[in-house]
Amino acid sequence: MYKLYSMQRSGNSYKVRLALALLNAPYSAIEVDILRGESRTPEFLAKNPSGQVPLLEVAEGRYLAESNAILWYVAGGTPLAPESRIERAEALQWMFFEQHALEPNIGAAYFWLALVKGGRDLQTHALEDWMERGYAALQVMENHLKTQPYFVAGQLTVADIAMYGYTHLADRCDFDLATFPAIRSWLRRVEQTSGFVPMDWQPEAPEAGVYAPGIAAEA
Amino acid sequence: MYKLYSMQRSGNSYKVRLALALLNAPYSAIEVDILRGESRTPEFLAKNPSGQVPLLEVAEGRYLAESNAILWYVAGGTPLAPESRIERAEALQWMFFEQHALEPNIGAAYFWLALVKGGRDLQTHALEDWMERGYAALQVMENHLKTQPYFVAGQLTVADIAMYGYTHLADRCDFDLATFPAIRSWLRRVEQTSGFVPMDWQPEAPEAGVYAPGIAAEA
Repeated sequence: MYKLYSMQRSGNSYKVRLALALLNAPYSAIEVDILRGESRTPEFLAKNPSGQVPLLEVAEGRYLAESNAILWYVAGGTPLAPESRIERAEALQWMFFEQHALEPNIGAAYFWLALVKGGRDLQTHALEDWMERGYAALQVMENHLKTQPYFVAGQLTVADIAMYGYTHLADRCDFDLATFPAIRSWLRRVEQTSGFVPMDWQPEAPEAGVYAPGIAAEA
Repeated sequence: MYKLYSMQRSGNSYKVRLALALLNAPYSAIEVDILRGESRTPEFLAKNPSGQVPLLEVAEGRYLAESNAILWYVAGGTPLAPESRIERAEALQWMFFEQHALEPNIGAAYFWLALVKGGRDLQTHALEDWMERGYAALQVMENHLKTQPYFVAGQLTVADIAMYGYTHLADRCDFDLATFPAIRSWLRRVEQTSGFVPMDWQPEAPEAGVYAPGIAAEA
């Protein structure tokens, strides 16, 4: 059984939990609250020197980082991982796009507006850039999804899971998807997939305090 | 034969040219000077809506973007692409790390310090962040390479090509690799690989003007 280090409210962590749910793969989740510095302890840095979640323990003492790499690992050999040379590369194309055009903008806006108390005031100037670049990324996605039901191969793959992670959080951080009808249809298609779980879904009762609404001062 | 849209002095473009050279794969290169806006023309945006190089035409009218996705495409089925589930995921882990921890810092510093005339004065404040985060990324790499000859699987793979792209440019933009002996040894190992070509290597004479030293005012 996989052991997943994850933060409930992180889009990157959610991608992996969503994939494991769609695959009906059992796992135990360890909550790591990055807002409380729990990904920067010596113990965690020994597991992942980058100090980030999600992190998957694939074997005793062997750890895999980077949400999109973890998706390929857990989905390997299933229909979620397209294996033809061109479709694999096209899925990767969207996943690298996600990490440099979507996550640093919508993900950053979500973090500061939705998770950090007072974050909007701290990031007034950066927010303008995030909105502009985030909308540009959404437009690229919209144009693609106008003629395609999913990002690659005509079916749900790891590319959709990666793109869904932060796109579905856009309306929690000022982005308005009203003018992106193809994206909204695609979000609904993903959500209607058998096995889908929303970000807030939890496999078990959270430990006391971990999901407390207050956010640590250092965040 | 592949058709590659590439910029000679771009680390991301060089990754693909290096892979094709190591694979001894023939291709024709079309120089796209992003400093002159050549990746933002309607003609180029029709090929790649993200407006970036490198871009590979894989079949008539079918284009693949994102340097690291292109690496997996051209290397598919060769020893450069590790195909076991865990080694593939570990290679991807480093390639996603490269795109969010290395390229946005060393790549950005290289762009503004080495390519854009007067860039240092325009980016004084950003440069501090790039240096701090770039050094943090280099330290993660150094620690890994202390015990590993290559990033994954004990041999040269697409992960090394991706990481080499900007790491080998670090000393052109203020980074000092003196305290990173494992990285320096690894750079030499990559350079001693049969078929290796440096970034400045050109398959044919450049078209007049394309490689002119002056940099457009809008850059």
